[in-house]
Amino acid sequence: MMYAWEQNKETVVTWLTDRNFGAIRAWLQEQNAVDIAALIEELPEVHHTAVYRLLPKTIAAEAFAYMESDTQERLIRAFTDRELAAVLDELYLDDVADLLEEMPANVVKRLLRVTSPEDRRTLNQLLRYPENSAGSVLTTEFVDLKADMTVAAALRYIRTYGPDKETIYTCYVTDSNRHLQGVITARELLLAHETDRIGDRMQTNTVSVVTTEDQETVAGLFARYDLIALPVVDSENRLVGIITVDDVVDIIQQETTEDIEKMAAIIPSDKPYLRTSVWELFRSRIPWLLLLMVSATFTGMIITAFESALAASVALTAFIPMLMGTGGNSGSQSSVTVIRSLALDDIRFGDLFRVLWKECRVALLCGAALAVATFVKILAVDRWLLGTAVTLPEAAVVCVALFITVLIAKLVGCSLPMFAKRVGFDPAVMASPFITTIVDAISLLVYFGVASHILSA
Amino acid sequence: MMYAWEQNKETVVTWLTDRNFGAIRAWLQEQNAVDIAALIEELPEVHHTAVYRLLPKTIAAEAFAYMESDTQERLIRAFTDRELAAVLDELYLDDVADLLEEMPANVVKRLLRVTSPEDRRTLNQLLRYPENSAGSVLTTEFVDLKADMTVAAALRYIRTYGPDKETIYTCYVTDSNRHLQGVITARELLLAHETDRIGDRMQTNTVSVVTTEDQETVAGLFARYDLIALPVVDSENRLVGIITVDDVVDIIQQETTEDIEKMAAIIPSDKPYLRTSVWELFRSRIPWLLLLMVSATFTGMIITAFESALAASVALTAFIPMLMGTGGNSGSQSSVTVIRSLALDDIRFGDLFRVLWKECRVALLCGAALAVATFVKILAVDRWLLGTAVTLPEAAVVCVALFITVLIAKLVGCSLPMFAKRVGFDPAVMASPFITTIVDAISLLVYFGVASHILSA
Repeated sequence: MMYAWEQNKETVVTWLTDRNFGAIRAWLQEQNAVDIAALIEELPEVHHTAVYRLLPKTIAAEAFAYMESDTQERLIRAFTDRELAAVLDELYLDDVADLLEEMPANVVKRLLRVTSPEDRRTLNQLLRYPENSAGSVLTTEFVDLKADMTVAAALRYIRTYGPDKETIYTCYVTDSNRHLQGVITARELLLAHETDRIGDRMQTNTVSVVTTEDQETVAGLFARYDLIALPVVDSENRLVGIITVDDVVDIIQQETTEDIEKMAAIIPSDKPYLRTSVWELFRSRIPWLLLLMVSATFTGMIITAFESALAASVALTAFIPMLMGTGGNSGSQSSVTVIRSLALDDIRFGDLFRVLWKECRVALLCGAALAVATFVKILAVDRWLLGTAVTLPEAAVVCVALFITVLIAKLVGCSLPMFAKRVGFDPAVMASPFITTIVDAISLLVYFGVASHILSA
Repeated sequence: MMYAWEQNKETVVTWLTDRNFGAIRAWLQEQNAVDIAALIEELPEVHHTAVYRLLPKTIAAEAFAYMESDTQERLIRAFTDRELAAVLDELYLDDVADLLEEMPANVVKRLLRVTSPEDRRTLNQLLRYPENSAGSVLTTEFVDLKADMTVAAALRYIRTYGPDKETIYTCYVTDSNRHLQGVITARELLLAHETDRIGDRMQTNTVSVVTTEDQETVAGLFARYDLIALPVVDSENRLVGIITVDDVVDIIQQETTEDIEKMAAIIPSDKPYLRTSVWELFRSRIPWLLLLMVSATFTGMIITAFESALAASVALTAFIPMLMGTGGNSGSQSSVTVIRSLALDDIRFGDLFRVLWKECRVALLCGAALAVATFVKILAVDRWLLGTAVTLPEAAVVCVALFITVLIAKLVGCSLPMFAKRVGFDPAVMASPFITTIVDAISLLVYFGVASHILSA
């Protein structure tokens, strides 16, 4: 789909070359901060600062937060100290922390110089949380109320301090030591009597996480409980911040992209494709290719070891790709299903035997169907249509080996990711390519084993 | 992670056998609707209705909405008409529509009998929207305001009608013909003066979708604009409902699971793994396995065609799995990256040449690195360590074929999903297994082509 601003990009460029700044300013006033950020990034770099300075104050900082870090850096270098201070003042502190992480040292220095000592302390703390933890995605700008406030007082408090808060829809009730006591939504406040006490209306069975919790768990909680915001506490249950649902949508997309990349034997990166350099793409892809290539040589060694058997029955060689391919596909169907179910918390390690039993029955059905199909195909196509010299015992070897391979592939495919998760490895890394290599080797061993049994009999 | 209710499941069962309903009722009062739904589903079926009847009225319907359809059906069959009417009255209409879609005909008939004629009309409309469209996930319970209301009047309106609305945080302003005029958030209402006119405070550059829009596009808009709710209009721009962010989180998870399943050659289903029967799993997996098996026989035919070449140089056979495996992995790295980027709207068809150029350079780097590694490995391991009879020309054949295969695999892998999307096919279906089969065939043709060139020279 095409966004509105994309249709107007040409017009804006014309206005810029005509120096018709009034028209641009009027047009910008109607636009969304996200679209303005996208527009500025699409314009030639010489225009970035000029367009940014035409933005209404209220929207400038928001648009800034949505830009890519190279655009942000270019703007910061063009800003006066006063402009920079104005932007930082409007930004939420978690966005400033993200900015500090991305910028080179000299820009960071300048950013910190124009920040207030109090904000610097908070920033320092935000930057100390480990990557991908709940702490690293929280925001400290939330509404905190006290249990003995009345609803009217709480609404007055929100009206005064709300404009600087990331959300006012979920308010947090803390005691004098900042311990989280409960939660009350703006909806409950609006529907309650003005004289009600907050302590009597708040919900106390609050879902919360500690700062060190993995962001994937955080995303799971939002999905499970349909949350709009989630409080984050430190090890002593003191409220340090909240995570809002708009950030969680981004976390879910990012975590899933990582899982998909791992399943495809790619080392994950968090950059969009077109912004990733050729060299970075190369480095994220070559390690697994090399490793899988080395492990694939084992299958080569197996073939070499059975060279004489293959020479005795040339027809058998032709079925190797089909056998290995079907085994690999069967295995990755199971592994991918299990990996995704683990990620969504649909299954856990305790379900191992239920999963094995289910996959076993599915494998028997799939294996039987594939073996029968192959047998019919060998008779009808290979022998009758193409006149290939496949003997009936050879056809039997292929079908029996196929059946056993599918069974083993599915059992390996479903159990390996579960064991990986159990011992603290990433299940997604266990997926398709890795399992395919194991299954390739097993399928060849099965094939030659069955061949020597049936053909020598 | 372990949820609180899981630790208490045993206790609840003890209370049930002791008929200590007071203890259960007190404990349930402290629980979240999501957890109650999960608990009931874990209990033996005989207890379901008993526990449900102990729930506080306010939370019963919410917990009901979170249950799986077989549990819902069992409860409905146990309900009296009065109980059923009470639940339906508390449920949002979009949840009732989902329920109607899942239930067998006789239950649907009973459900419709206890619904008011007005609700029946709305339900009828909701059920007519195509699956996975914006219309199919919208809710009709939103706050609609008029432009000439004052802020005070709007807040009074919300206090009166808010309790039945799915969200009160984004309010929609419509004219007398229900055309969407603008949006105002609860936050803006709380921070505005009581005498301000809604029409002067509302935002008019509203992002909206039409009922027929794909839910994947809807999810993309939420991610892009950090939305909490999105208005849905009909073809004449009349507001028919809204989509809320908690539903979008589910949509994102569901759409990604579908994409992952398609990439692993599985026909997507929307049931959690442990609730999918063996037969359903079989049916979702066997079609692609059969299709890919048939197409893999082409690679078999290629091998048969070059039988004499293989007989002349037995060492070449041993490298076939490595060559096909590396080609397949290289291709699926590219295809999966492109498919995910397409899904996230990071790249579009117009970027085809940028993508091809980038993949071409990455492929040259990967191909060169892999060819060199293979050459060194053949010299060091195969010839020197294992004493295998690989001649230098044969080593050259393997390395050159590998280099060409990686290049072709990456170019096919990145372009096929983009063409697929262009002509309206699902790019995810083009992924790993399908591309792997194409790449397998190509890599063998390249291999034998290179072999006949170099070895006959």
